[in-house]
Amino acid sequence: MIRDRVRDLLRQVAAGAVDVDAAVDRLAFAPVESLEFATVDHHRALRHGFPEVILGAGKTPEQVVAIAERIAEREDGFLATRCEPATREALGRAFPGAAVNPLGRTVRLDGRRPRTLTSGTALIITAGTSDLPVAEEAAETCAALGTRVARITDVGVAGIHRVLARRDDLLAARVLIVVAGMDGALPSVVAGLVGAPVIAVPTSVGYGASFGGVAALLAMLNSCASGVTVVNIDNGFGAAAAASRILHSP
Amino acid sequence: MIRDRVRDLLRQVAAGAVDVDAAVDRLAFAPVESLEFATVDHHRALRHGFPEVILGAGKTPEQVVAIAERIAEREDGFLATRCEPATREALGRAFPGAAVNPLGRTVRLDGRRPRTLTSGTALIITAGTSDLPVAEEAAETCAALGTRVARITDVGVAGIHRVLARRDDLLAARVLIVVAGMDGALPSVVAGLVGAPVIAVPTSVGYGASFGGVAALLAMLNSCASGVTVVNIDNGFGAAAAASRILHSP
Amino acid sequence: MIRDRVRDLLRQVAAGAVDVDAAVDRLAFAPVESLEFATVDHHRALRHGFPEVILGAGKTPEQVVAIAERIAEREDGFLATRCEPATREALGRAFPGAAVNPLGRTVRLDGRRPRTLTSGTALIITAGTSDLPVAEEAAETCAALGTRVARITDVGVAGIHRVLARRDDLLAARVLIVVAGMDGALPSVVAGLVGAPVIAVPTSVGYGASFGGVAALLAMLNSCASGVTVVNIDNGFGAAAAASRILHSP
Amino acid sequence: MIRDRVRDLLRQVAAGAVDVDAAVDRLAFAPVESLEFATVDHHRALRHGFPEVILGAGKTPEQVVAIAERIAEREDGFLATRCEPATREALGRAFPGAAVNPLGRTVRLDGRRPRTLTSGTALIITAGTSDLPVAEEAAETCAALGTRVARITDVGVAGIHRVLARRDDLLAARVLIVVAGMDGALPSVVAGLVGAPVIAVPTSVGYGASFGGVAALLAMLNSCASGVTVVNIDNGFGAAAAASRILHSP
Amino acid sequence: MIRDRVRDLLRQVAAGAVDVDAAVDRLAFAPVESLEFATVDHHRALRHGFPEVILGAGKTPEQVVAIAERIAEREDGFLATRCEPATREALGRAFPGAAVNPLGRTVRLDGRRPRTLTSGTALIITAGTSDLPVAEEAAETCAALGTRVARITDVGVAGIHRVLARRDDLLAARVLIVVAGMDGALPSVVAGLVGAPVIAVPTSVGYGASFGGVAALLAMLNSCASGVTVVNIDNGFGAAAAASRILHSP
Amino acid sequence: MIRDRVRDLLRQVAAGAVDVDAAVDRLAFAPVESLEFATVDHHRALRHGFPEVILGAGKTPEQVVAIAERIAEREDGFLATRCEPATREALGRAFPGAAVNPLGRTVRLDGRRPRTLTSGTALIITAGTSDLPVAEEAAETCAALGTRVARITDVGVAGIHRVLARRDDLLAARVLIVVAGMDGALPSVVAGLVGAPVIAVPTSVGYGASFGGVAALLAMLNSCASGVTVVNIDNGFGAAAAASRILHSP
Amino acid sequence: MIRDRVRDLLRQVAAGAVDVDAAVDRLAFAPVESLEFATVDHHRALRHGFPEVILGAGKTPEQVVAIAERIAEREDGFLATRCEPATREALGRAFPGAAVNPLGRTVRLDGRRPRTLTSGTALIITAGTSDLPVAEEAAETCAALGTRVARITDVGVAGIHRVLARRDDLLAARVLIVVAGMDGALPSVVAGLVGAPVIAVPTSVGYGASFGGVAALLAMLNSCASGVTVVNIDNGFGAAAAASRILHSP
Amino acid sequence: MIRDRVRDLLRQVAAGAVDVDAAVDRLAFAPVESLEFATVDHHRALRHGFPEVILGAGKTPEQVVAIAERIAEREDGFLATRCEPATREALGRAFPGAAVNPLGRTVRLDGRRPRTLTSGTALIITAGTSDLPVAEEAAETCAALGTRVARITDVGVAGIHRVLARRDDLLAARVLIVVAGMDGALPSVVAGLVGAPVIAVPTSVGYGASFGGVAALLAMLNSCASGVTVVNIDNGFGAAAAASRILHSP
Repeated sequence: MIRDRVRDLLRQVAAGAVDVDAAVDRLAFAPVESLEFATVDHHRALRHGFPEVILGAGKTPEQVVAIAERIAEREDGFLATRCEPATREALGRAFPGAAVNPLGRTVRLDGRRPRTLTSGTALIITAGTSDLPVAEEAAETCAALGTRVARITDVGVAGIHRVLARRDDLLAARVLIVVAGMDGALPSVVAGLVGAPVIAVPTSVGYGASFGGVAALLAMLNSCASGVTVVNIDNGFGAAAAASRILHSP
Repeated sequence: MIRDRVRDLLRQVAAGAVDVDAAVDRLAFAPVESLEFATVDHHRALRHGFPEVILGAGKTPEQVVAIAERIAEREDGFLATRCEPATREALGRAFPGAAVNPLGRTVRLDGRRPRTLTSGTALIITAGTSDLPVAEEAAETCAALGTRVARITDVGVAGIHRVLARRDDLLAARVLIVVAGMDGALPSVVAGLVGAPVIAVPTSVGYGASFGGVAALLAMLNSCASGVTVVNIDNGFGAAAAASRILHSP
Repeated sequence: MIRDRVRDLLRQVAAGAVDVDAAVDRLAFAPVESLEFATVDHHRALRHGFPEVILGAGKTPEQVVAIAERIAEREDGFLATRCEPATREALGRAFPGAAVNPLGRTVRLDGRRPRTLTSGTALIITAGTSDLPVAEEAAETCAALGTRVARITDVGVAGIHRVLARRDDLLAARVLIVVAGMDGALPSVVAGLVGAPVIAVPTSVGYGASFGGVAALLAMLNSCASGVTVVNIDNGFGAAAAASRILHSP
Repeated sequence: MIRDRVRDLLRQVAAGAVDVDAAVDRLAFAPVESLEFATVDHHRALRHGFPEVILGAGKTPEQVVAIAERIAEREDGFLATRCEPATREALGRAFPGAAVNPLGRTVRLDGRRPRTLTSGTALIITAGTSDLPVAEEAAETCAALGTRVARITDVGVAGIHRVLARRDDLLAARVLIVVAGMDGALPSVVAGLVGAPVIAVPTSVGYGASFGGVAALLAMLNSCASGVTVVNIDNGFGAAAAASRILHSP
Repeated sequence: MIRDRVRDLLRQVAAGAVDVDAAVDRLAFAPVESLEFATVDHHRALRHGFPEVILGAGKTPEQVVAIAERIAEREDGFLATRCEPATREALGRAFPGAAVNPLGRTVRLDGRRPRTLTSGTALIITAGTSDLPVAEEAAETCAALGTRVARITDVGVAGIHRVLARRDDLLAARVLIVVAGMDGALPSVVAGLVGAPVIAVPTSVGYGASFGGVAALLAMLNSCASGVTVVNIDNGFGAAAAASRILHSP
Repeated sequence: MIRDRVRDLLRQVAAGAVDVDAAVDRLAFAPVESLEFATVDHHRALRHGFPEVILGAGKTPEQVVAIAERIAEREDGFLATRCEPATREALGRAFPGAAVNPLGRTVRLDGRRPRTLTSGTALIITAGTSDLPVAEEAAETCAALGTRVARITDVGVAGIHRVLARRDDLLAARVLIVVAGMDGALPSVVAGLVGAPVIAVPTSVGYGASFGGVAALLAMLNSCASGVTVVNIDNGFGAAAAASRILHSP
Repeated sequence: MIRDRVRDLLRQVAAGAVDVDAAVDRLAFAPVESLEFATVDHHRALRHGFPEVILGAGKTPEQVVAIAERIAEREDGFLATRCEPATREALGRAFPGAAVNPLGRTVRLDGRRPRTLTSGTALIITAGTSDLPVAEEAAETCAALGTRVARITDVGVAGIHRVLARRDDLLAARVLIVVAGMDGALPSVVAGLVGAPVIAVPTSVGYGASFGGVAALLAMLNSCASGVTVVNIDNGFGAAAAASRILHSP
Repeated sequence: MIRDRVRDLLRQVAAGAVDVDAAVDRLAFAPVESLEFATVDHHRALRHGFPEVILGAGKTPEQVVAIAERIAEREDGFLATRCEPATREALGRAFPGAAVNPLGRTVRLDGRRPRTLTSGTALIITAGTSDLPVAEEAAETCAALGTRVARITDVGVAGIHRVLARRDDLLAARVLIVVAGMDGALPSVVAGLVGAPVIAVPTSVGYGASFGGVAALLAMLNSCASGVTVVNIDNGFGAAAAASRILHSP
C-alpha cells in the first residue's frame, strides 16, 4: 500500500506533474517522517483505533484544558485520565458535552463522527468495591475506543460462589478484564472458567505487605491459570487499550 | 443452556425415564462437579483448546514419562516444558513420534486427530539470540495449541532499523509476542508500530542489575505504548497460551 | 447430607409432588448458588461467627454510614475498621448505641441478640505503647465476634523480665495475639514460653530500615520458636479473626 | 501452682527435711532455671507436646545421627527435617524403626510410649503436585506430634470445581493447612468456604517473578478472606506445629 | 552472688528466722521479678547510665508532656527525641529549664544531680550540612548520657582533603560517630585513618536511588574498612547510645 | 611539581634561609591542607569548571539566600537546584539579575566574568512532556557551567519515527543526555543511532510498578546499546555535570 | 545530506534517467533500510569505532567459535567477553593470533588494519584485587576499540593515602573508569580529585548485604561528587565502551 | 608527634646531617605518603592493632599461600578468612605452626613476638548451633588481634531462660558479640540485660523469607534495645574487629 503511494508520487515526478522539491518534501527525508509511518502519527486514531489520551496526573487544570482544546480542534474527541477534581471541573466547563466520571477520574469527549461499537464485549470484573475506580477508568477507556463493555462487581474469591453464579456472563465475554487488589487471586479463578483472553489488573488496594499493589501484581504474574496477561498496577486504561486491540482486530 | 439440560433431566425423572439415583449421580451433588463445569474438566482440550501440559521442572525423567503416558492414553497429545536433557531423552525414547526441541527445552506429542490451524498468525519477535529459548518455548506451545506462528529474531532496539525493516511482517500479524531481556525496550517500540495486541515476555537474559529479568519485566509493565500486556519472566508458554486464547476466539 | 436433600427433591419430582420448573429453580443452575453454599452466604454470620465488617479506609463518611445502615437493617450488628475521625463521628451520630474507639479507629454496633462469649480467652500482648492502635483494633474485632479478651501492654524484649513477670497470664490464655513493631522479637519469646497458638502481628511502628513494618514481618516469619503464624502488617483485625476461628471451634 | 511447689519446698527446708544446699540446687539460682520454666525445658515434650526436632539443613549426616542418638537416649523420639538423601540413609541405618520420607525429606522416630492422637483433624491441602514435599513435611510433623491428619492434593484455583467438590472434607476439618506456590490463591478460596482456622504455607514453587515463593507469601498475607495466618516459605514444619498447638489445646 | 543470697534466705528459713510465706514472697515466683533483674529495672539509669528517653514521634504534645512530667517527678531528667515543633514548644513551656534543640528535634532536661562527663570523647562527624539534624540528635543524646562530645561538620569524601585536614581531631577521639547520607562513603575513609571504634549512621539525605537512606546503609554495612558498625537510618540517638555504652565502660 | 617545591623548601632550610619551624608550618602536617590539593579547594571553579551549587531541597528560603549571598561575594555566580517556589521567589528578590526557572526549579546567577561556551553541544532529549522538569534542571546546569545545549522534546519510543526524524540533530551532538521515565527505553534507541557518549537520566515519571523511577533506572543500566552510562533518578544536575566534564576536557 | 541524495534521485526520475520502479526500490519503503541508517549497520565499525563483540555467557564453545569465524571472515577482528575456560581454549585454538585473557575472561582478535590509538588515556582504577577481572574486561575492551589505557590497582578508600599518592596519574587521565565493590566509595573520592569524566563500575565483590553488587551500585548512583556516571554491575565492557565513545569523539 | 618527627628531620637538614634529596624521599612528596599516614600503612599492625588479613573467598589456594608467604616474611603473622578446605589444607602444609579452624573456615599464624591479651573480654553469644561458623570466625579474629574471648552458645530467645541463666557471664563481658540468624531477636534481649556495648551479627541461617540473613539484619537494625550496632551478614570478622577497636582503646 505504501509502496503504491510512493510509486504514484514518483510517476507524477517522472511525468512532470509534481516538481522535485515538492516531492522531496512529501517523501520526508528524515527516514520515516515522509512515509506513511510519520503521517500515521497525525492519524493515530485511524491506525490504532485510538483517540488522543491525556494523562492528567502531574499537569495543572490549565495545561490539561489547553491540550484538550488543541486535540478537540484537530481530532474532535479525547480521553483525559487520572484527573484531579479541579481538572475534571475545568474540563467540564470547557467542554459541556464531555462525560465526567468522578469515580474513574476521567473526562471523555466523543468525536463528531459516530463510532461503531465492537461486536464482541469486554467484561470488566472487580474483586471488591475499592477496585471500582480502576474498573471505571477501564470502562471509560473502552467507551472512548468504541469497545462494548459489561461489568460484574464485587465477586472476590473469598466468596467463590459469587463468581460461579455469574458463569453465563463469564462465558459470553470475548475478553475479560479482571481487576483485583490484595491477594490478586481472582484472575486465576476466572481464567480457569473461561477460554477467552484474560487481562489482569492489579490495584493498589490494600495495606502493609500489599506494597501498593505489588502483592497482587506478583500473584497475577504467577497465575496458575495459563494465558493470563498483566498490566501495571491501577492501569485500567492499559487493560482497556489491550482489550480494544483484541476486539478491534479484523 | 445448562438450565435446559437440567430441565431435560428432571423431565426424564418426572416421566420415570431416569430413576432417582441415576439422576442424583448425574447432578453431581458436590456443588459443581455434577454440572457442566465439572465435566468440562475431563474435556479441558475442548474448553480451552489446550492439550495437557506437563511442567518438567522439578520432576524426574521417570515422573514426566509416567505422566505423559497417562495423558497419551487418555488425550492422545501433550506438551512437556522446561525439560532437562535427561527428561527430553527419556520422552523421546518413550514417544518416538514426539517433537523434541532442545533449545526450547520442550517435548511435544501431537494427538491423533489432525488439528486445524488458526487463520490468524502469532508473530514471535526476539530482541537477541539469547532470548531464543523462550521464543522456542512459545513457538512449541503454539504448535501444540494449533496456533499459526511466524518469527522475527534478533531485532533489538539498539539497531532500531532492524525492527523497522520488518514493518510488513509486523503489520501482518494478528497477535505479537515480543520476547526481550536486559532493558526490555522492544515491546514499546513494536506496540507503537502496530494496532494488534502485543504480549511482552521479559527474559532472564542479562546480569547484575537485570536481577534475573526484573529490569525487563518492570520496563514492560511501564511501557509507554498503550495496550501492552505482560507475562512472567521467561514464560514463553504463558505468552503463547494468551495468544492462542485470542486467536482461537470465535 | 447434600446428597440426601437432592435425592429427596428428585423423589418429589418423580412422584409429581414438585413440578419440573420449581425443581429447576431450587437446584440453582448457576453452579453453586442454588445449593447450600450459596444460601450459606446469606447467613455468613452463622457460618463464620462473623458479623459484617466494613473497611473504612478509602470510603467517605457518607459511604460508610450508608453501608452500615443497610447492614443494621438486615443483620443488626457491624464492625467498621480503619475509620478516619470524620467517619467515626458520622457513625457515632447515626448509631448512638455504637462503641466508638478512637485509638483502634473502629466503630462497633452489637446486634440485638446477646452473643455468648467464648470460654477460652485471646490474650493480646503489645511490645510498646505505639503498638496499641493495632491491639485495640484486634480487641474491638474480638468484641464484635464474641471472643473473650485479655491484654498485656508494653512488654518489649529489651526489658525481658516484664514479659516473664506475666507468666501466669501467658499460660492462662487459649490463644495469644502478639503485636510488635521494630525488631518484631516478642512473638519468638512468647511462643517459647507457652504451648498455645501464637498469632504474630507486625506493626508499622519504627523508621528507616523498619520499612513500614517489613523488618518486624520478616522477623516473625522467621521466628525461631516453632508454630508462630503471622498476619499482614498492622492487621489487628485479621489476627482477631484468626483467633476467633480457633476459639469458636467446637 | 509454682507458688505451691516452692512453698512446699520451703516448708521442707523449714522442717529440716531438705537441707539448704539441696534446696538451693532445686531452686536454680540463675533467675529462671531453678523454677518450673527451666525444668520445663528438660521436659519440652510435655509443655509443647513436641518431641525434639533436628533441622537437617547445613549439618553432615554424622552430625545429625549423633544428635539423634543423644535424643533417642534421653527422649525416645525425634523428627529430623530437611535431610539430604545421605542423611536420610544414615538415619535409616542407625534407627531401623524410623520412618524415612524421601518426598518430605524427613526421618521420624516415634517414642516408646504410645501417643494418643488428637480428636480433631488437620487437613493438609495442596494446590499442585510440586507442593507435595512441603505437605509431606507438614504431615510428618503432625505424625510426630500426635496430630491427626487428612489430605487433599492438587486442587489449585485454576480448576476451582476441584476444591468445591471436596466441600465435605473441608468442613470436617478442625484446622486447615493450605500449601500453595505461584499465585498463592488457594488459601483465600478455602478460607471463604470454612469457618475453621486456616494456616497458609507459601511454597517456592514457580520461577521468575515468583521470587522463590515471595509472590505466594505476599498473596497469602493479603488474603481477602479474613482470619488466614501465614508461615514462612516452604515451612511445612511450622504450619504443622501451629496446627498442633491449636489441636492439642485443652 | 545470687546463689549466695538465696542460700542465705534458705538458711534463715531453715533456722526459723524467716517464715515460709515471707520467703516465698521474696523469691518472687514469677520467674524474674523477685530477683535482681527486676529491681534493676527500677534503677535503669544506674545499670545503663541512661535517663529515660521519650520517642516523640507518633505522640501528641499532651502525651509527651504527661510522660515527661511523670519521669521528672521520679527520675529528675529526660530526653525527648523526634519532637514536632508543637511538642518542643509544649515541653519548653512545661520545663523552663529544658534545652530545646530545634535542629535535632530534641528536648532535654538534666537531672538535679550533676553528672560527671566521660573522660573519653565521642567525635561526631557529618558528611554534609543536611546530615546535621541527625548529628544534633546524637549530640543531645550524648549530653543526656554524660558523654563528652566533639564535632566536625561537612567533610564529605568528594573533598577528601577536608577530612584529612582534621587528622589530629580524628586521632584524639575515643569513639567516632560518622553521619552520612547519599553514598555513605565517609565512614570507610574515617575508619581507615583511626584505630578507635567507628559507628556509622546512614541518613535519609538524598533522593531517587538513595531510597530514603538505604544506599548509605548498604554502603556502610559493606565498608571496606574493618570494624565499622552501623545503626538504623537517621538513628542519631542509637549511635550516641552505643558510643556511650563504650565510653561509660569501666 | 610538588616534589620540586618540597625540594626547594628543604634547600632553603639547608641553606638557613628558612628556619625549621617556619618550614614545618609550610609543610602542613595535617596531611594535605598545606599542599596543592588543599589550595585547589579554594579554586574549585578552576579545577572542575564548576561554580558553587546549592541543593535547595531541605533548606529554608532564608538559608538558601544566606548561602547564595556568601557565594556571590566570593565567587560571583551560583546555581540553586530543587528550590521550592518560596525559595525561588526569595532568591529572585535578593538577586534581581538571577535567572529563575520554575519548571526546572532552579535559580542561576552568572558570574561577572563572561564565560566562554564549549564548542561542542550537549543535546538534551526527553521522552515525554512530564520529563521536562528534569531536562530543564540539566539545561540550567549546563548554562551555569558554560556548556552549549540543544534540546529535543517528547520523542518517546512508542512513536519511534519521532526520534528518527531528528537524526541530523542526534548526529550533530557531542554528548547526549537522554531523559526518560516509565520504561526508560529511549537511551537504548538513541545510543544505537549515534557514536557519541550517551548519559541516561531515569525520571520518577510513572506510577505503580515504575516504583518512582526504578523501572527506568534498571532499564537504562541494562541498556542493550553499549556505552550508555546512567545517573540517579531525576538527577538532571548530575547528567549535565557529567556532560560538562566531557565537553570541557582539553 | 540525506535530503540531497533523495533530491538527486528524484531529479534522475524527473529526467527519465532512473525509472520509477528502480527508484521505488532505492527509496526502501521499509522506512529506514534503504536509507543511510540501514547501510550504517553494515559498517558499524566505522560509525561507532566498535568491532563486533560476542557475549560468551550462555553460549557453548562451539557457538562462540562459529560466530567468531563468521565475524573474522567479514570484519577481521572481534572481542569475546564473559568466556568460560572451555570457550577461551576453543577460541585460542581456532584463532592462534588471538589474545586470551583468563582474568578478564576475554578473547580478542585484532583486525588486519592497524588501529591508531586514541591520544587521550582512559585510566582504570580498582579498589581491591577482587575487582581485577572487571578491570581486565574493561582494559581488553579498550584494546579492542583502540583506546589508550593506564591502570592503578588496589587503592580502596580504607587506605585513602594510596589514592592520594597517585595524584599525578589521576590528573593525567582524560577519562577515569573506577571499579569498586563492597561500599563503592572510591568513585566519589576520585571524582572529587579530578575534573575529567568519571565512569563508575560497581562489582559483585562482597557478601551478605552487598547483594551481589547492589550496595556498590546504589552508592555510586548517589555519589556526593557531581558528574559521576554509572554502568551495570560488573560491566567492565560497558564502561570501556562509554570511555571510548568519549575518547574517540572528534 | 608527627610534627616532632618532621621537625627533627628538618633540623637534621638544617644541620647538614641529612642531605636534601634523602629528606625529600623521607617526606614522601605525594601528599600523604611521605608523612606518617603513609608509613603507618607499612606498620598497620601498630596503628590498628591488626595483623594482615587475607580474604580467602575468590582466591585459589596457591594465591592465598603466596600472599601469606609474603606477609609472613614481612609481618610474621596473618589471618586468612573464608578459606575453602583446599585452601586451609594448603596453608596448613605451608605453615605447620598455623591454627586451622575448619568450622570458622580460618587459618591463623601468630607472629613471633608474643602478644599481650586485652584485659577486657569480648563475649561471643550464638542463638543456634548453625550460627557457630560465624562465631568461630569472630573468635579466630579476636585471637589474631590479641582480644580475650569467652563464649555462650545456643541460647536462642525461644528458650529465654537459657539466656537468663547466663546472667553473670553476660555482666562480666566488656563487649558482647551476639550472633543470630532467622528472627535476629537475641541482641535485643541481651542488650536489655547489660550496659556494655553490644555488636549484633546477623547470619544467613534460615530459608525462605529469611532472604539470606536480611530478616535478621533488619531486626537488628531495628532493635528495641538502645545502643545495639550491627555489622554485615555473616561478618564475624568485622564484629571481632569492632570489638577489638573497643577493647584495645587506651
